[in-house]
Amino acid sequence: MKMNAAVCYEFGKPLVVEMVELDPPQMGEVCVRLVACAICHSDVHEIRGEWGGTAPVVSGHEAAGVIESVGPSVTRVKPGDHVVVSLLRQCGECFYCTIGRPYRCEKSFPLDREHRLHNAAGVALRHGIRTAAFAEYTVVEQSQVVAIPPEIPLECACLLACGVITGLGAVTNTAGVETGSRVAIIGCGGVGLNAIQGAVLSGASQIIAIDILANKLAAAQEFGATHTLNAKAGDVVKAVLGLTEGRGVDYAFATVGSPRAIEQAVNMVHQTGTAVIVGMPTNAEAMFSVSAHHMTNGRSIMGSPMGSTRLFVDVPRLVQLYQDGRLKLDELITKRYPLAQINDAITSMERGEALRNVIVF
Amino acid sequence: MKMNAAVCYEFGKPLVVEMVELDPPQMGEVCVRLVACAICHSDVHEIRGEWGGTAPVVSGHEAAGVIESVGPSVTRVKPGDHVVVSLLRQCGECFYCTIGRPYRCEKSFPLDREHRLHNAAGVALRHGIRTAAFAEYTVVEQSQVVAIPPEIPLECACLLACGVITGLGAVTNTAGVETGSRVAIIGCGGVGLNAIQGAVLSGASQIIAIDILANKLAAAQEFGATHTLNAKAGDVVKAVLGLTEGRGVDYAFATVGSPRAIEQAVNMVHQTGTAVIVGMPTNAEAMFSVSAHHMTNGRSIMGSPMGSTRLFVDVPRLVQLYQDGRLKLDELITKRYPLAQINDAITSMERGEALRNVIVF
Repeated sequence: MKMNAAVCYEFGKPLVVEMVELDPPQMGEVCVRLVACAICHSDVHEIRGEWGGTAPVVSGHEAAGVIESVGPSVTRVKPGDHVVVSLLRQCGECFYCTIGRPYRCEKSFPLDREHRLHNAAGVALRHGIRTAAFAEYTVVEQSQVVAIPPEIPLECACLLACGVITGLGAVTNTAGVETGSRVAIIGCGGVGLNAIQGAVLSGASQIIAIDILANKLAAAQEFGATHTLNAKAGDVVKAVLGLTEGRGVDYAFATVGSPRAIEQAVNMVHQTGTAVIVGMPTNAEAMFSVSAHHMTNGRSIMGSPMGSTRLFVDVPRLVQLYQDGRLKLDELITKRYPLAQINDAITSMERGEALRNVIVF
Repeated sequence: MKMNAAVCYEFGKPLVVEMVELDPPQMGEVCVRLVACAICHSDVHEIRGEWGGTAPVVSGHEAAGVIESVGPSVTRVKPGDHVVVSLLRQCGECFYCTIGRPYRCEKSFPLDREHRLHNAAGVALRHGIRTAAFAEYTVVEQSQVVAIPPEIPLECACLLACGVITGLGAVTNTAGVETGSRVAIIGCGGVGLNAIQGAVLSGASQIIAIDILANKLAAAQEFGATHTLNAKAGDVVKAVLGLTEGRGVDYAFATVGSPRAIEQAVNMVHQTGTAVIVGMPTNAEAMFSVSAHHMTNGRSIMGSPMGSTRLFVDVPRLVQLYQDGRLKLDELITKRYPLAQINDAITSMERGEALRNVIVF
């Protein structure tokens, strides 16, 4: 099948939008006509070469569309179904799938062995982040899609594939924040705002949002933060302690993938509080350092891989919350772009201007 | 009241057993005639000056005895009651007590302001680790004692004050190990052996004990370890992965207070496993370093302050398990010493010869 895609031929260079060839779906795979794909920081990391891997590659992994065709043995969806398309994939049989943690499915294929795309010259294009959704169509494993009601706008639904589940799930699934809890959220980008939404939905009594950009803090307030702190204005750990009688919050979420944010999170929870690491560090070798004594007081640190999301369970629940008017999705979209302007959308994202920029096909 | 006590006049020097003067119990306090006091590594750290503080001091905090007298407003016990005497103290009213974590009671008095002891020359002796139980009598706050049935031998009961609750509680309270889990225990001293007991009681299917001393590994096997690894023989992380199909255990417990043990624990749990920090580092400034990426896979790190023990609930439960023949206490005692030979008992402990040496008054 011939279609338009945005190809990264060289890390750090603008993407090239051109006609490419997509293989048909194989056993257990589906072909999706994409309607919307949001730009996530992980895409930016990939096309900047910050996560290793090889070029040429087609990125994009926060998508939604309509099933175009299905390969043999596909049972979960049929042509015409509206679906969210995620990078998460689950076999349902391995150790992690069986213990309710499908986000760590052991059957996941290595990303770089997947070549279903070729350019006009016949050069293989890597299927970025398992999804390759900066394109009019994609072919993915059937467990990467979740059917949703057709009345949900797909440009909203695409956000459920990554940013929303990662931020919200960190609060509701990983941490299991209880009603009345006090929480701090470090970083108010796409993931952080959804952590704030998760805290609101969980009934948190105090939601302290931390960022270095005034526009992100303003958005945080709109999403339900009860307090905002600009990290440029001083020591945020001290400020959080000051807002909690010197004790610290019950939960702190580091949605920024930096060792410093993780360490701050550990230091702003109370003696039996929990710091949750949500943001993926750009540098795969990044280490963080914590006081052993500080931990033996009773603190916990939890890693939250994509919000500990169980796609088949969590996406329908979030769709229901959206339909009930309790989950903000439209408000997360800063601007819509056609595929031809994807480089503008990425640049705006990198400048910190956007909550989410969405490519609408 | 005049009595014998073992006084540390200078850090690192042998204790001096001599007659000292103990003040009577004040409001809410009780005086206990001590019958047994085990020697814990924390006592050794204190009398070596490794935890700061000042000398002269009377250490000892893993004790049991009989209530001698009570101060005004004491309601929990009466003279003649047999009790376990612990360093844990709880007000029952503060934030941590109220949320079920009395081991972090905010009303705890600073240790070094407590002077209820004086020597013959009138010099104040610090009440070490809140307990000062290397003595024939002690005065403690009433929440530090838990009454037990008189038929329980007090030289066994004293072990419930610290080592048993710390190791066992790390498994049952802090981690909440589920039946069938795979666990690794780093360090098979008094705390580690009790973590092994906790794992056995919790129904763990694989209990991998790790130490550098053959005698401790032999004890670990007697306490229920299914596998033993001598850390001197090679990379224990690799060995644990080798015993778990390359995946790692569900829970790893660092009962040794070193950053290296903590880091090993984090690296030997599977992608959604939990490392529990049990051992207190000697150096209060000790930091440990962990890969941020490793954590975002879904790992957790939990600090276990004295096994997250709720003294009033856990001690009676453990007494019942002992009475039912399911909890080993007698087997933890290597040798009994009179107070006059406390320095020999400490030296034997430091040489790694003893599980627990107990002073019997």
